[in-house]
Amino acid sequence: MQRLLIFHPQQGLKESLEPGFRPRQGEEFVWLDLVRPSPEELDLLTELFHFHPLAVEDCRRPHYRPGIAQYDEYAFLTLRCVKHGKGSQTVALNVFLGPRFIVTVHQESLDFVDDLWQQYHRDAELFKKGVDFILYSLLEPLTATFFTFFDRTEDKLEHLEEAVFHRPSRQILNQVFTLRRQAIKLRKILGAQRDILNLLSHPEFKLIKQENRVFFLDIYNEMLRLIDQVETLHDLASSTLEIYLSLTSNRLNEIMKVLTVITTIMMPLSLIAGIYGMNFRYMPELEWRYGYFAVLGFMFFLAMVMLYFFRRKGWF
Amino acid sequence: MQRLLIFHPQQGLKESLEPGFRPRQGEEFVWLDLVRPSPEELDLLTELFHFHPLAVEDCRRPHYRPGIAQYDEYAFLTLRCVKHGKGSQTVALNVFLGPRFIVTVHQESLDFVDDLWQQYHRDAELFKKGVDFILYSLLEPLTATFFTFFDRTEDKLEHLEEAVFHRPSRQILNQVFTLRRQAIKLRKILGAQRDILNLLSHPEFKLIKQENRVFFLDIYNEMLRLIDQVETLHDLASSTLEIYLSLTSNRLNEIMKVLTVITTIMMPLSLIAGIYGMNFRYMPELEWRYGYFAVLGFMFFLAMVMLYFFRRKGWF
Amino acid sequence: MQRLLIFHPQQGLKESLEPGFRPRQGEEFVWLDLVRPSPEELDLLTELFHFHPLAVEDCRRPHYRPGIAQYDEYAFLTLRCVKHGKGSQTVALNVFLGPRFIVTVHQESLDFVDDLWQQYHRDAELFKKGVDFILYSLLEPLTATFFTFFDRTEDKLEHLEEAVFHRPSRQILNQVFTLRRQAIKLRKILGAQRDILNLLSHPEFKLIKQENRVFFLDIYNEMLRLIDQVETLHDLASSTLEIYLSLTSNRLNEIMKVLTVITTIMMPLSLIAGIYGMNFRYMPELEWRYGYFAVLGFMFFLAMVMLYFFRRKGWF
Amino acid sequence: MQRLLIFHPQQGLKESLEPGFRPRQGEEFVWLDLVRPSPEELDLLTELFHFHPLAVEDCRRPHYRPGIAQYDEYAFLTLRCVKHGKGSQTVALNVFLGPRFIVTVHQESLDFVDDLWQQYHRDAELFKKGVDFILYSLLEPLTATFFTFFDRTEDKLEHLEEAVFHRPSRQILNQVFTLRRQAIKLRKILGAQRDILNLLSHPEFKLIKQENRVFFLDIYNEMLRLIDQVETLHDLASSTLEIYLSLTSNRLNEIMKVLTVITTIMMPLSLIAGIYGMNFRYMPELEWRYGYFAVLGFMFFLAMVMLYFFRRKGWF
Amino acid sequence: MQRLLIFHPQQGLKESLEPGFRPRQGEEFVWLDLVRPSPEELDLLTELFHFHPLAVEDCRRPHYRPGIAQYDEYAFLTLRCVKHGKGSQTVALNVFLGPRFIVTVHQESLDFVDDLWQQYHRDAELFKKGVDFILYSLLEPLTATFFTFFDRTEDKLEHLEEAVFHRPSRQILNQVFTLRRQAIKLRKILGAQRDILNLLSHPEFKLIKQENRVFFLDIYNEMLRLIDQVETLHDLASSTLEIYLSLTSNRLNEIMKVLTVITTIMMPLSLIAGIYGMNFRYMPELEWRYGYFAVLGFMFFLAMVMLYFFRRKGWF
Ligand SMILES: [Mg+2]
Ligand SMILES: [Mg+2]
Ligand SMILES: [Mg+2]
Ligand SMILES: [Mg+2]
Ligand SMILES: [Mg+2]
Ligand SMILES: [Mg+2]
Ligand SMILES: [Mg+2]
Ligand SMILES: [Mg+2]
Ligand SMILES: [Mg+2]
Ligand SMILES: [Mg+2]
Ligand SMILES: [Mg+2]
Ligand SMILES: [Mg+2]
Ligand SMILES: [Mg+2]
Ligand SMILES: [Mg+2]
Ligand SMILES: [Mg+2]
Ligand SMILES: [Mg+2]
Ligand SMILES: [Mg+2]
Ligand SMILES: [Mg+2]
Ligand SMILES: [Mg+2]
Ligand SMILES: [Mg+2]
Ligand SMILES: [Mg+2]
Ligand SMILES: [Mg+2]
Ligand SMILES: [Mg+2]
Ligand SMILES: [Mg+2]
Ligand SMILES: [Mg+2]
Ligand SMILES: [Mg+2]
Ligand SMILES: [Mg+2]
Ligand SMILES: [Mg+2]
Ligand SMILES: [Mg+2]
Ligand SMILES: [Mg+2]
Ligand SMILES: [Mg+2]
Repeated sequence: MQRLLIFHPQQGLKESLEPGFRPRQGEEFVWLDLVRPSPEELDLLTELFHFHPLAVEDCRRPHYRPGIAQYDEYAFLTLRCVKHGKGSQTVALNVFLGPRFIVTVHQESLDFVDDLWQQYHRDAELFKKGVDFILYSLLEPLTATFFTFFDRTEDKLEHLEEAVFHRPSRQILNQVFTLRRQAIKLRKILGAQRDILNLLSHPEFKLIKQENRVFFLDIYNEMLRLIDQVETLHDLASSTLEIYLSLTSNRLNEIMKVLTVITTIMMPLSLIAGIYGMNFRYMPELEWRYGYFAVLGFMFFLAMVMLYFFRRKGWF
Repeated sequence: MQRLLIFHPQQGLKESLEPGFRPRQGEEFVWLDLVRPSPEELDLLTELFHFHPLAVEDCRRPHYRPGIAQYDEYAFLTLRCVKHGKGSQTVALNVFLGPRFIVTVHQESLDFVDDLWQQYHRDAELFKKGVDFILYSLLEPLTATFFTFFDRTEDKLEHLEEAVFHRPSRQILNQVFTLRRQAIKLRKILGAQRDILNLLSHPEFKLIKQENRVFFLDIYNEMLRLIDQVETLHDLASSTLEIYLSLTSNRLNEIMKVLTVITTIMMPLSLIAGIYGMNFRYMPELEWRYGYFAVLGFMFFLAMVMLYFFRRKGWF
Repeated sequence: MQRLLIFHPQQGLKESLEPGFRPRQGEEFVWLDLVRPSPEELDLLTELFHFHPLAVEDCRRPHYRPGIAQYDEYAFLTLRCVKHGKGSQTVALNVFLGPRFIVTVHQESLDFVDDLWQQYHRDAELFKKGVDFILYSLLEPLTATFFTFFDRTEDKLEHLEEAVFHRPSRQILNQVFTLRRQAIKLRKILGAQRDILNLLSHPEFKLIKQENRVFFLDIYNEMLRLIDQVETLHDLASSTLEIYLSLTSNRLNEIMKVLTVITTIMMPLSLIAGIYGMNFRYMPELEWRYGYFAVLGFMFFLAMVMLYFFRRKGWF
Repeated sequence: MQRLLIFHPQQGLKESLEPGFRPRQGEEFVWLDLVRPSPEELDLLTELFHFHPLAVEDCRRPHYRPGIAQYDEYAFLTLRCVKHGKGSQTVALNVFLGPRFIVTVHQESLDFVDDLWQQYHRDAELFKKGVDFILYSLLEPLTATFFTFFDRTEDKLEHLEEAVFHRPSRQILNQVFTLRRQAIKLRKILGAQRDILNLLSHPEFKLIKQENRVFFLDIYNEMLRLIDQVETLHDLASSTLEIYLSLTSNRLNEIMKVLTVITTIMMPLSLIAGIYGMNFRYMPELEWRYGYFAVLGFMFFLAMVMLYFFRRKGWF
Repeated sequence: MQRLLIFHPQQGLKESLEPGFRPRQGEEFVWLDLVRPSPEELDLLTELFHFHPLAVEDCRRPHYRPGIAQYDEYAFLTLRCVKHGKGSQTVALNVFLGPRFIVTVHQESLDFVDDLWQQYHRDAELFKKGVDFILYSLLEPLTATFFTFFDRTEDKLEHLEEAVFHRPSRQILNQVFTLRRQAIKLRKILGAQRDILNLLSHPEFKLIKQENRVFFLDIYNEMLRLIDQVETLHDLASSTLEIYLSLTSNRLNEIMKVLTVITTIMMPLSLIAGIYGMNFRYMPELEWRYGYFAVLGFMFFLAMVMLYFFRRKGWF
């Protein structure tokens, strides 16, 4: 799917390509948006916009890691955002940013791109803020997708941490590990995107107008916030695993204490019972009138002594 | 709640806005303090002070991570301090620092802001030190809130560490994890605030007068001290967890030794008792006059041998 | 084995050394490829190309760590790639890059070198892109060997992680450790190769033509992607080990619970049986008509009480 | 306690303040040493030397973290050394270093300050080396206090490591944790002092004479050595804890093996004894002439088989 | 022991000090080598060569950490190498490098110094390459001592890792810890030596002739390779410890499974035997003709059920 906006300050908005139109020469502001571009549509990038084959190749198969490549008159960006419903899978958004043209290419439909398109379609005067402002208007909601994902993940982790305390199980453990792995992957993406924003908001980066720089600095700060949050998530996950381990080892102690207390009390009594179960011909105690009750009493006494001993040791 | 101080070196102190007053032009020193500002009060920032919408937006919903954004003639700071009674929750303090005006915005009342306000209200001559000195006079107590919080936390951790040694339990474990997580969060805030102070105390940062620079360097050093302290807290918490783990595993050994010693002594004796409890018709020993006492003696001897063996092995 | 391509823009392609031919002077583009070079072939490098003895020495015994040494008029690179079938063992590729000559030396045959050789042999006009483009055309497939290896390893690790969850064993454990060690070794190689690409794509590095710089930047980005991937592999391996440890300690708890429940129920019952197995002359209960069934009933009751107690404790 | 040395190249040494004497103007070299200064003595710093209130405030309550603050004509240093007998508690030494004056302030008496004082008191010509040489002559022994402390701690740790191997206990564990925590604290102090020395030995740092620079470089190198040593201590402590954990888990295995071997051998034999202890009317084996010895023999055989099985499994 | 080589391009080689000879002035190349220098021999350094007392002091007691101190006309290096037979103990080599003189001081005889001395003694023309080439010719074999040590250690570690898998024991554990500690210590030395080589191979370092720079770069690269290798050793040791821990915890599970299976099967059977060993007057089953065999059958059946249960649980 391909949609095009050509805005001329005087002649207003056009939405289709006139023959002989050369996007990188005229006065017009151009925004071309390609969604799941067909090979022919991608050729448009080489023939009409004369973009470098390496960049166009990346549009076909976007790389995992965000990055920016500066060609003579334009910059080619690979950005990533979190798409609702796709868990932590990120979706690529490629952008060709020129002085007066911006080309956005993505394999999946993105709400915030559609919304912005409607806005510019309704009010083409917005083009006057410059195509770099379009990039900012895309970056703003792009970072928001991470914020929402992290808030949701943080809640999930807090529930998991609760669960770990009460009924630790393998499923819970597995979820914590998966969350931590997602945090690591997203940390790498955000690190790369922070570096891109650092470059975009640099005074020497000519493609961003001087008065728009403060907006890109704001996005740069948001990336720093996102990195803080994803690192906190990673720590939260790691410490949940640490809690799990400490708890399991603590519980093991509890179990062993029970086993040892029972065994230490029962075994001697069983031995006594066993001794008086022996069939020796001459076993004096067996003849005593109250032998049986004496032995029972002694067993009881022995049990109490051992219980007191374990009580003092704090074993129960 | 909104309070305003306008000090003119000659005309003295005024506390209300005269119509036509333009804060960023005249001779006057202006300090505007907004506490839980209403939407109208926030509009004051855009209409009267012409502050950038991004910055005013941040006043409405302060970001978690401290930061500084430099606009043409003023700087917008997001700072955080610890508020007594709110545990490790930090409270945001936004500051617009201009050449002769300073606007402080915060969603919660802060003692040290009120105290400073009274001081300037009583002795408006203080304004002559410059509005940057007001910022310093706010930063000094702001860092103090962290120092007090860390000292309290350090004592808490030392008690927890004691507790871990004597009666480790899940609650104690949980508290240590929470303290460590707080330390991580505060470490990120302090790291960001250190970077802000680094910028404020830089010779090229024009909004700070040359003679006031040494004060901001002192705050920068205090941030370094705070970071040292919070890192030490994190290490203290981590090592407490390590102690907990090593102790639990050590205790498990103790329990197992008791279980094994008892079992290893009792089981052979029970077997002997069991053997002589068998109902074989011809069991010679059963007929011996002193068979019973011989077996008891042998059992005693066997127990002593095993006890000696475990003693030498250092098991009890 | 030695193969040579000498391309003169006008006189076309020659494949053998004419006497008196001096490779570093003339107009011609020269590509010399040495596979498992004999000592005589290596002397060619010193006598014909006057390369520094240190560099030629490295060709004889390539170092493990990739690196670049800049001599006055040429650069000597040590690069490494993964060879299919050799697991994580990397193979060295030494390159002498001059203004119009490139010499490739490797101890093992490499498919991508052969393929490129055929391409240049068929269409010698390619030389006009410059010998630096030959280097790029080698680096592209060289990085691809890492990508394929990592994808394969990632799948292996995911299977191992599954296995760890279901039937952890020492072999599985051993494989995870080996994978992690490979990840560390490859991380060091990729780090060194990233630094080489950083140097090659630097504007001041004269041996790369200005218009070819963007290609080397692309390889630099691919190295960053590879480093991300190998670090993710390392994390995946480390977390698999963590899962293994947490699981084993969790399973231990399960086993111990079973042991303790059984022991705690059986031992008291055995004691009771033992008590009524004693041969005291006067044991009233033994005479009761339903003594036996009473005791059996009591044992059953006792077992139920204990089972309920363990159920409530969540032990099974 | 306050002691003063004023050395005039021509007029020689004076030890008391003449009225009207202005330390920061004249030709004289001045060394003022304040030990546990009274408030009046501290006022001397503000009135006579006109030092910045912030610095004087720090003398009253020295900060934990070493640091350097450069005022227009002098530098204010906070340094720390280890005092014999105070364990790892460090003692602060504040120094005001001017072109021809040096003021040392410390709350505790320090041997190396007294020694140097006697030396300069005996041979005032030393002043000609410059007051910066006094600072060097204090730094040299100051670093020595750390060296001695670390050597002692290293020996302590080596003994602890031995103890861990032979009879691990909670006290030993506790000492290792304390040593590690001390290492962390001292690491932070040394890191800060290394940065101070880095600044002092910098060619642009005017207060150090060009010919004395090499001495301060030597102290800088000593700080690097100290950091190496404290990091090694930290590693030694950490690895001792790791040994402790691995050993405890290894010992647990040993204990469990004994328990399992005993139980696995005894239980079946007890069952056999138990079976032949049953009171069934018709139990053929009971009537056999050698039933008893057959059962004993079978028991012995069964025990041998099991022992062989455990031997092969390497369990004892 | 003291040996001296003075080579004059025209007058050839002399081996003894003529009176009035001033090493740092004349045309001659001077190489003085001091082995376990006596106090008088060390004075030679101050009186004849006028070296700084700090440097000469270091020759008396070499510091642990390699370093370089630049004096006006010469540089003083502290280097370390591994001496065969001394395990991981490193031996110091101090070098005074001047424009035309080089003084080597070491407390232990070093083969590679003796070899180089013989070479220069036989062929004094080598001096024409410059005294810096002598330094290179010492650094080359010095790095080789580390390579050989690491290769040997890597093999040792690989054997230890094998041993850990088959028969883990405390001795093995101890050796792994010692190897890791050695790796840490050597890592610090190599880090410091890498920094020295970085300085030596810097274009601005005048004492190295321009044409010899490439040789020092090669040594710099060798230091990087050594650091890679020592870090890999450290990882290998750490992962061996991790394997040890995972294995021990895995083995513990195995032992516990055996204990639990035996106990869970035996105890119920013993209970049954115990029940029928009771002396109740009326126990109907005891009278049944086949009661005994029924009970034995039931016991067998019960054992089979439990074995099947454990089989399904994967416990053996
Ligand atoms: Mg690409
Ligand atoms: Mg990738
Ligand atoms: Mg936002
Ligand atoms: Mg939340
Ligand atoms: Mg993970
Ligand atoms: Mg990254
Ligand atoms: Mg943490
Ligand atoms: Mg914002
Ligand atoms: Mg945030
Ligand atoms: Mg303060
Ligand atoms: Mg305290
Ligand atoms: Mg931070
Ligand atoms: Mg502090
Ligand atoms: Mg620590
Ligand atoms: Mg080499
Ligand atoms: Mg190597
Ligand atoms: Mg590619
Ligand atoms: Mg995959
Ligand atoms: Mg590296
Ligand atoms: Mg991780
Ligand atoms: Mg202070
Ligand atoms: Mg010293
Ligand atoms: Mg020692
Ligand atoms: Mg370590
Ligand atoms: Mg020294
Ligand atoms: Mg040392
Ligand atoms: Mg070599
Ligand atoms: Mg090897
Ligand atoms: Mg170690
Ligand atoms: Mg170091
Ligand atoms: Mg590792």
